[in-house]
Amino acid sequence: MERIDDLGVKNLKIIQNTDLFCFGMDAVLLANFAKAYAGDTVVDLCTGNGIIPILLTAKTNAKKIIGVELQKEPYSLAVRSIELNGISDRVEMINDDIKNVFSHIGEGKANAVTCNPPYMTGGVGKVNPNDAVAIARHEIATNLEEVVYIASRLLKFGGSFYMVHRADRLCDIMCSMRNHHIEPKRICFVHPRVNASPNLVLVEGKSGGKSGIIIDNPLYVYNDDGTYTDEINKIYEREI
Amino acid sequence: MERIDDLGVKNLKIIQNTDLFCFGMDAVLLANFAKAYAGDTVVDLCTGNGIIPILLTAKTNAKKIIGVELQKEPYSLAVRSIELNGISDRVEMINDDIKNVFSHIGEGKANAVTCNPPYMTGGVGKVNPNDAVAIARHEIATNLEEVVYIASRLLKFGGSFYMVHRADRLCDIMCSMRNHHIEPKRICFVHPRVNASPNLVLVEGKSGGKSGIIIDNPLYVYNDDGTYTDEINKIYEREI
Repeated sequence: MERIDDLGVKNLKIIQNTDLFCFGMDAVLLANFAKAYAGDTVVDLCTGNGIIPILLTAKTNAKKIIGVELQKEPYSLAVRSIELNGISDRVEMINDDIKNVFSHIGEGKANAVTCNPPYMTGGVGKVNPNDAVAIARHEIATNLEEVVYIASRLLKFGGSFYMVHRADRLCDIMCSMRNHHIEPKRICFVHPRVNASPNLVLVEGKSGGKSGIIIDNPLYVYNDDGTYTDEINKIYEREI
Repeated sequence: MERIDDLGVKNLKIIQNTDLFCFGMDAVLLANFAKAYAGDTVVDLCTGNGIIPILLTAKTNAKKIIGVELQKEPYSLAVRSIELNGISDRVEMINDDIKNVFSHIGEGKANAVTCNPPYMTGGVGKVNPNDAVAIARHEIATNLEEVVYIASRLLKFGGSFYMVHRADRLCDIMCSMRNHHIEPKRICFVHPRVNASPNLVLVEGKSGGKSGIIIDNPLYVYNDDGTYTDEINKIYEREI
């Protein structure tokens, strides 16, 4: 079922289809964590229905934000959301495998790359490889190593990479990034609540950066009574 | 100046010399974080005045704990502390470079290896290479990569590695461990206080382990009023 959701910031809206993958809090947290500046070109890999590029138009002064999505259906939703919001001067969509992104936009041109990739390692649990939701969730069409490799080729030297992923993949993330010369510089763990281990991690890396990382204060999602914490409300009120 | 400090647990004491490197909270946190079981052999690299082996006799049922220390003076203090505490049946000291540890105790025999290594990268700041305190603090005689490599050779397959280090070295730690087939399995960040970035990280790795890491809840050292938090008091009351 298709619906239009109000993102609550600068009147932005997004068209979603509940039969496909709908954006989650992780995308909102990533859009809040990422930084881009006036004149910047940003590439969002595995962009789905375009939630991150749309939010980044409100959150940053980036000149151009390019979303790349393999699947036709979410790509089409993203194109329609961009038209609906009147932001086609700043946001562009590419409907292709991220492996082929270089033929569209070349290499070494992005000031920042963002990605909310499929989290689940391939072959874990039952997945239908033709299922649109499965492709968004599982490492079927791409994987962590490939996302980082492609980001490293897209980034200018000194450019920034922003990713959200499962916290238990932390070592995979650190090692993949360093292997591809994107040095992890800042991480923020997202805990469901105080006294619970984090389930998500936000990571910022710098192309060609030197060793040395800052760990942000933990971000807690829920209070003990099940309501959102002030920090989450702040992110949503401001950004969504 | 030499002094005897009461460790406040099972009547254990430690002989320290204030001209040399005296143990800090990081050693206590590491001894609290590490696990060892009845019959186990544990090796503590860069053991200094033996604080970690001494604490581990109280904290665990390990059968044999072997401390390795390059410098003669802290080694001698450790030997005297072991006698003073009457724990020479469980704790043994080796006065040698950790590079030579294999000639004393062979390879692949440790159930656990612990290390509170020098934190500062070599060449950072002014250091006197003959200064005992500098050798304990700076990567002069050894470094992170070497410590992990030596631990990997000492450990049995499936054995555990426990280290405390500066949080900003997180990526170096993760990558060194994986390079040497010690998979990071659990980490705990130590923050000076709530709303401050962590300055220390405790890491547990498993020799030959599979990818997948648990991030413990953060450990906060001080309350806003400068007093120790309950969790730190608990660690100290129980262990020190």
